[in-house]
Amino acid sequence: MTVAVVYFSEQGTTHQVAEAIADGVSQQSGQCQLLRVTDDQIVDGRFTSAHYIDTIDQCDAVIFGSPTYMGGPAAQFKAFCDASSDCWDNQSWSGKLAAGFTVGSNPSGDQLATLQYFSILAAQHGMLWVNLQMPSDHEQNSENKLNAQMGFAGVIPGDVISRSDRVGAASLGSRVAQLCKRYTAVN
Amino acid sequence: MTVAVVYFSEQGTTHQVAEAIADGVSQQSGQCQLLRVTDDQIVDGRFTSAHYIDTIDQCDAVIFGSPTYMGGPAAQFKAFCDASSDCWDNQSWSGKLAAGFTVGSNPSGDQLATLQYFSILAAQHGMLWVNLQMPSDHEQNSENKLNAQMGFAGVIPGDVISRSDRVGAASLGSRVAQLCKRYTAVN
Amino acid sequence: MTVAVVYFSEQGTTHQVAEAIADGVSQQSGQCQLLRVTDDQIVDGRFTSAHYIDTIDQCDAVIFGSPTYMGGPAAQFKAFCDASSDCWDNQSWSGKLAAGFTVGSNPSGDQLATLQYFSILAAQHGMLWVNLQMPSDHEQNSENKLNAQMGFAGVIPGDVISRSDRVGAASLGSRVAQLCKRYTAVN
Amino acid sequence: MTVAVVYFSEQGTTHQVAEAIADGVSQQSGQCQLLRVTDDQIVDGRFTSAHYIDTIDQCDAVIFGSPTYMGGPAAQFKAFCDASSDCWDNQSWSGKLAAGFTVGSNPSGDQLATLQYFSILAAQHGMLWVNLQMPSDHEQNSENKLNAQMGFAGVIPGDVISRSDRVGAASLGSRVAQLCKRYTAVN
Repeated sequence: MTVAVVYFSEQGTTHQVAEAIADGVSQQSGQCQLLRVTDDQIVDGRFTSAHYIDTIDQCDAVIFGSPTYMGGPAAQFKAFCDASSDCWDNQSWSGKLAAGFTVGSNPSGDQLATLQYFSILAAQHGMLWVNLQMPSDHEQNSENKLNAQMGFAGVIPGDVISRSDRVGAASLGSRVAQLCKRYTAVN
Repeated sequence: MTVAVVYFSEQGTTHQVAEAIADGVSQQSGQCQLLRVTDDQIVDGRFTSAHYIDTIDQCDAVIFGSPTYMGGPAAQFKAFCDASSDCWDNQSWSGKLAAGFTVGSNPSGDQLATLQYFSILAAQHGMLWVNLQMPSDHEQNSENKLNAQMGFAGVIPGDVISRSDRVGAASLGSRVAQLCKRYTAVN
Repeated sequence: MTVAVVYFSEQGTTHQVAEAIADGVSQQSGQCQLLRVTDDQIVDGRFTSAHYIDTIDQCDAVIFGSPTYMGGPAAQFKAFCDASSDCWDNQSWSGKLAAGFTVGSNPSGDQLATLQYFSILAAQHGMLWVNLQMPSDHEQNSENKLNAQMGFAGVIPGDVISRSDRVGAASLGSRVAQLCKRYTAVN
Repeated sequence: MTVAVVYFSEQGTTHQVAEAIADGVSQQSGQCQLLRVTDDQIVDGRFTSAHYIDTIDQCDAVIFGSPTYMGGPAAQFKAFCDASSDCWDNQSWSGKLAAGFTVGSNPSGDQLATLQYFSILAAQHGMLWVNLQMPSDHEQNSENKLNAQMGFAGVIPGDVISRSDRVGAASLGSRVAQLCKRYTAVN
């Protein structure tokens, strides 16, 4: 079972979250493909890496990730999303599992809006959106500070993610991988 | 495999859509529980039927439905949603499949906003949200006039749903039932 | 200049926020009408107070408020929203200022989703939506813990709002009143 | 009074809508600055035109526009939005009027989601969001096919916008200009 994590990270913080998610996938004996969108892949405002799209075509699940910039996903990540329109045309991602994560420097820098966009992207592709299960001790939940359930929403003011953020992100990867095991993509 | 369809219908139009969805579930040999929220179940603004909540607890999937009133689900349906908070406390719906449908009298009476709310409700419960697969002839798609993919969004100005709306709604029920067959709820 | 604050409060916390907002309106020499939706105004799931609707018709601005329940406004408040559909029919609220506030017990109990719904409600009515101005010291902003800018989003785990929440809510009332003074409703 | 229309247009359809909006501004004796985001302004995924940002700083209102791609604004337009973060830091756009428009090839290619994003962008900047007033003959409204009220949402399958789309777009420009006349930006 293979999970793609496709994401943009400007300075490396979102990249650390992606790595923690990959750890969670590995804990479930899943393969994880880390696909980081880079500036040089964007030419004249368009994402150009057919390799990323092809890799996702082969995966059972995709986890979308981006910092929240000005109330939504970074433009660099949106360029990837726009480039997935060919897959929309033939609905080739239909029935795959999808999930998302984002980070911001404020408690509510509109991270929910970024997760909502990811869920709309998944809707356009006919995917199944995986939400988080809130642990029973949710009120004191250091691993999910925002208590977002639509995905992992980190509040990371500095450059290094905390141990609790790492655990929270890993739990998203683990959950997606667990669900993949019990589920076979349907078209 | 059992699918609950919980919905509010003021004058019967949304009820007809719910029945078409049930037909789709039956086509996949699934059991369908039609749970219609009625005015007398709402006392002092609160939904009071423990039976509905208990029934959903036993189902593999839930499809939420409401007309779109003033840019969101009808208050009567929101009363049901609020009453599901006990299930949120113990995350007892986590891992179930969820989907949604709505109807409005205008092409974009903000039906998407109602579907987005349903997806947030599903997120709070840790469910998996089922999006539609768009048929390949999407540009001429009489069974999905709005081409919404987050759920079934009907445009029904009058009292009777058309044959194409019935087919579109049935395809949602059928898709959810198909996915249920291949999927076992995970907590 | 008159500002209506129409809101639902189950146990009084949201009511305290509404009172703080009224203080902010008064600081700008504005009149404030506090309109609290009560359970007995909801009969068979429908809001029945024509008086509230009529009062808002006479005001220059309206501030919508509700706790966030299950990812959206409380059903009791949604009943009020649904009852405003007559005003939508004749667009009698068009050009008025609108704003919103919500409270939840978790940092991100999807308060943004409630504020987004309020903004959609305002859109249906053709109103002008007032967003917050973020103070320059936003990173240490004790009066706006969530740093939401679409409205006031409180995180109030207990029964009594803090002094900083009171100040933050008052600033919303003050901002709406200030804008009212410079602005005459246009239809 | 000056209104900026900042937008992206791949093949010219959105550009035609922007021109119709400019006509509406002119009908109210307003100045209109058409600011079209072009591919060469995006270098390594980042928008680079300080001139656009400076021009908007001098305007009384801003109208955001983009085609809807994959359920949201085009990446090229999002790059502009991300570049406005300096203005967020000092809240220099606070109190300006804002509005939005989008076009898609399907009736509900999630155009509402694009308008919702624009309203969140406006929220981050502390602007006032202008919604449409629905004409009284809304059910037969050829100038607003989707009946969206959060902004102008066109359904334009081909390359040329229809006369009714042009009239609908002009009414957005006209409304924003009218409101500007009665309103002085407040910080």
